[in-house]
Amino acid sequence: MKGTVLFGPRDVRFEEREVPKIIQPTDAIVRTSATCICGSDLWPYRGISPITEPTPMGHEYCGIVEEVGGAVTTIKPGQFVIGSFAASDNTCPHCRYGYQSSCEHREWISTAQAPRLRVPLADGTLVAVPDAHSDELLPSLLTLSDVMGTGWFAADAANVKPGGAVAVVGDGAVGLLGVLSARLMGAERIIAMSRHASRQKLAREFGATDIVTERGDEGVARIKDLTNGVGADSVLECVGTHESMMQAISSARPGGYVGYVGVPHGVELNGERLFFSHVHLHGGPAPVRRYLPRLIDLVLNRSINPGKVFDLTLPLDQVAEGYRAMDERRAIKTLLRP
Amino acid sequence: MKGTVLFGPRDVRFEEREVPKIIQPTDAIVRTSATCICGSDLWPYRGISPITEPTPMGHEYCGIVEEVGGAVTTIKPGQFVIGSFAASDNTCPHCRYGYQSSCEHREWISTAQAPRLRVPLADGTLVAVPDAHSDELLPSLLTLSDVMGTGWFAADAANVKPGGAVAVVGDGAVGLLGVLSARLMGAERIIAMSRHASRQKLAREFGATDIVTERGDEGVARIKDLTNGVGADSVLECVGTHESMMQAISSARPGGYVGYVGVPHGVELNGERLFFSHVHLHGGPAPVRRYLPRLIDLVLNRSINPGKVFDLTLPLDQVAEGYRAMDERRAIKTLLRP
Repeated sequence: MKGTVLFGPRDVRFEEREVPKIIQPTDAIVRTSATCICGSDLWPYRGISPITEPTPMGHEYCGIVEEVGGAVTTIKPGQFVIGSFAASDNTCPHCRYGYQSSCEHREWISTAQAPRLRVPLADGTLVAVPDAHSDELLPSLLTLSDVMGTGWFAADAANVKPGGAVAVVGDGAVGLLGVLSARLMGAERIIAMSRHASRQKLAREFGATDIVTERGDEGVARIKDLTNGVGADSVLECVGTHESMMQAISSARPGGYVGYVGVPHGVELNGERLFFSHVHLHGGPAPVRRYLPRLIDLVLNRSINPGKVFDLTLPLDQVAEGYRAMDERRAIKTLLRP
Repeated sequence: MKGTVLFGPRDVRFEEREVPKIIQPTDAIVRTSATCICGSDLWPYRGISPITEPTPMGHEYCGIVEEVGGAVTTIKPGQFVIGSFAASDNTCPHCRYGYQSSCEHREWISTAQAPRLRVPLADGTLVAVPDAHSDELLPSLLTLSDVMGTGWFAADAANVKPGGAVAVVGDGAVGLLGVLSARLMGAERIIAMSRHASRQKLAREFGATDIVTERGDEGVARIKDLTNGVGADSVLECVGTHESMMQAISSARPGGYVGYVGVPHGVELNGERLFFSHVHLHGGPAPVRRYLPRLIDLVLNRSINPGKVFDLTLPLDQVAEGYRAMDERRAIKTLLRP
């Protein structure tokens, strides 16, 4: 079987890999109907998170169950399933509190950009999509594996409430779906921070009421202007750099909430500055599993169309071009079809 | 008038100072019935927060209004009042959201260890105690100016709920009153981290169910042991050092809450570590003004007796001994009577 392997900075190849098979009796093998490239895949692609050996890639997936281990009881071969990028048993205390991405038995999915993948803890991780659905819904269903669930968690962690003023830092796919999530949660004002025309357009389509192109202190000043000098009630941090995190914290009003989902790279928060900002801070790897049933419903009843973030679709064997397009910001997000 | 002045590390004197007078028409002059020394006063006393000139001290107070400015409408001479350590107009957006200690017109009170002080924004800052009250309630009423309100905010920010498991980092007066607050909020398990017999005793009296004497990794392991391996639902950080902050974050379960009220000194939070901890973080200077009416009721109806944290009472002119006793941890907290 061929699959995606990162060999070093900007060197991604579609190469022969081992065929995945059941290792634990709680595993399932899924034939991927679609997979995609995540903004976080660009950290190792760009060499910012160094790798030491050829590394399989991919953690977003949906597809058909081909085989299950002997201890799998609810997931069946033939089902169309979606799973989180973090495998979880969905029964441990952390899972029961809704933090499945901190499951005591968590395993990161990392081989999904391939025609088949092994999913550990299948009963806990995978959610079967109940109804038959048309192929046109496939991109939106795929987003629920990570990017839509992550945007939703950002909005949830940022305590978005009906009538609230929300700012979204980051115009990648997560940020854009953070905009969509904030709209669904009833925010009145949604300020998207973006400098790119195509992303601004999609942000507006998803529900952004304002676009701010400024960054740093000027960006913060614009957010203050747009919120009567007060600051945003909720800020979604969807990048993960020190600058974006400080931008988010500075844009929130005292007592406001910052939901941060960008995997932090080089972020160091000064305690005193955070203290006097008076913000609430919550984030981390999104507990996508918590949200899957509800988000599947919203896609199936066509309340949301998060699949619009895919502005490039390629055959899986052209995955290298998919990375290039995202790296060069020619594409917001690339969908790959085996 | 004589008042407390810090001249340098461990050099506090009761010295001649200017008599406070009305400067702004929104000011009041309060004759202090009692004042006290705060744990945070020890930062400059110990030279950790350096001072550049002789500095008046004190931000906790209650007393009788002597005079008000021409624009003061609700506060009247003769009233017994308590005010926050942060003066606030109580009308700006931040105040209306309950974050009076981030008031747009905030002024820090800093001259309270004296027989009289000027309180800016008197109508917003001061709360008159409605009933006549006996002198024995004075210490408890005084705590509402900062230390009790700060312990309460720590518990509130840490989302303490009925039945929850709470850990309190820090056995100073704020930590002890955090214990008391957590008990009032219905926590089932309250773990106080303390190595000092007298403080352990008071923690138990205030409602602690368990005492942990270990610190660092061992302390975290003990908290995990006491919470079935899960971690605390709520952790109150009442110290302000890097070690105590990391102890607090590590003691919370994923999805748990850390309320931090220790003024941070040298705290730097690594973004990645915070991200994967999955905790909620909230804190800052306590919005004491928000809680004052409710806490006054609780003291007047004798539901709480936070004044027990004062284990040393001195005449105001012996303030230097009060600082020494707290610095050497001979006293938890010193009450000063003019």
